[in-house]
Amino acid sequence: MPYVTVKMLEGRTEEQKRDLCEKVTKAVSETTGAPEENVVVFIEEMSKNHYAVAGKRFSDQ
Amino acid sequence: MPYVTVKMLEGRTEEQKRDLCEKVTKAVSETTGAPEENVVVFIEEMSKNHYAVAGKRFSDQ
Amino acid sequence: MPYVTVKMLEGRTEEQKRDLCEKVTKAVSETTGAPEENVVVFIEEMSKNHYAVAGKRFSDQ
Amino acid sequence: MPYVTVKMLEGRTEEQKRDLCEKVTKAVSETTGAPEENVVVFIEEMSKNHYAVAGKRFSDQ
Amino acid sequence: MPYVTVKMLEGRTEEQKRDLCEKVTKAVSETTGAPEENVVVFIEEMSKNHYAVAGKRFSDQ
Amino acid sequence: MPYVTVKMLEGRTEEQKRDLCEKVTKAVSETTGAPEENVVVFIEEMSKNHYAVAGKRFSDQ
Repeated sequence: MPYVTVKMLEGRTEEQKRDLCEKVTKAVSETTGAPEENVVVFIEEMSKNHYAVAGKRFSDQ
Repeated sequence: MPYVTVKMLEGRTEEQKRDLCEKVTKAVSETTGAPEENVVVFIEEMSKNHYAVAGKRFSDQ
Repeated sequence: MPYVTVKMLEGRTEEQKRDLCEKVTKAVSETTGAPEENVVVFIEEMSKNHYAVAGKRFSDQ
Repeated sequence: MPYVTVKMLEGRTEEQKRDLCEKVTKAVSETTGAPEENVVVFIEEMSKNHYAVAGKRFSDQ
Repeated sequence: MPYVTVKMLEGRTEEQKRDLCEKVTKAVSETTGAPEENVVVFIEEMSKNHYAVAGKRFSDQ
Repeated sequence: MPYVTVKMLEGRTEEQKRDLCEKVTKAVSETTGAPEENVVVFIEEMSKNHYAVAGKRFSDQ
């Protein structure tokens, strides 16, 4: 606790994902007071044909 | 805003998913008053071995 | 199946929410081929202090 | 209803997933009073590079 | 890990929710092999006006 | 995009939540390359009777 889910388009590198988990954990810990070892991060990737804004999928643009 | 997630079994065609995003966006916009450009749609597909009703997975039926 | 979640700011009327469920169900059924009786809709409301874009909460704007 | 989502690292066998759906459905039905045929279970699998505790991904350990 | 979310209509007693967490944790542990101390359960309650099947909310039936 | 959900026990102050949204947005933007204005943060609060670890709810400890 806390549990953080980051949902984003696929395509980031492993290095970006590693840094994302590290930096988000620090940001959550510093602002909520929860110790870093209690912060959990989940990454969820979306493909462009499963994500639409204004009714239009990113794969159709 | 609003954010809509549609979770369903895999297997729909790209055309069906495209129409789904378009029609759901219109339906949400018309009924909530949010402009269409603010409506976000996420599609999440399930496989038959990860979905169960009454304790029985679809892959086991 | 399908399962639809609509996440939006609180404040819509009961009539808007009723129409939302009705219209979204029709849109999902028509485009996916799933019968209307199988479509499930969940509404999730957010308060303005729990929703931020660009790092700024709606309650702080 | 109820709707149960089990999120876990990938790697369980089909037999484990089948038993998981069966046993969780029974547990939910017995304790909530909902009939088993109304209980829905979704399994969501995570890969080790998308899951971090204490800022460190399981793929980096 | 695993993380279990149970989404259901509001109205269960505290005793039912306590038993639900206990029994679901056991069921998940026994079938996945994860130790009980690693199993996390979240309960999410829905109100009848935020839940629809076949386009009709439970508050409208 | 990206969409970040932070799920945590209720009880943080408005100032903590404001800082959380700000700092998490920066962390996500810096590590993924997404501009800050595209980052969305949702806060979801849990009560102690709806959150269990090892089968035991926080309200029962």
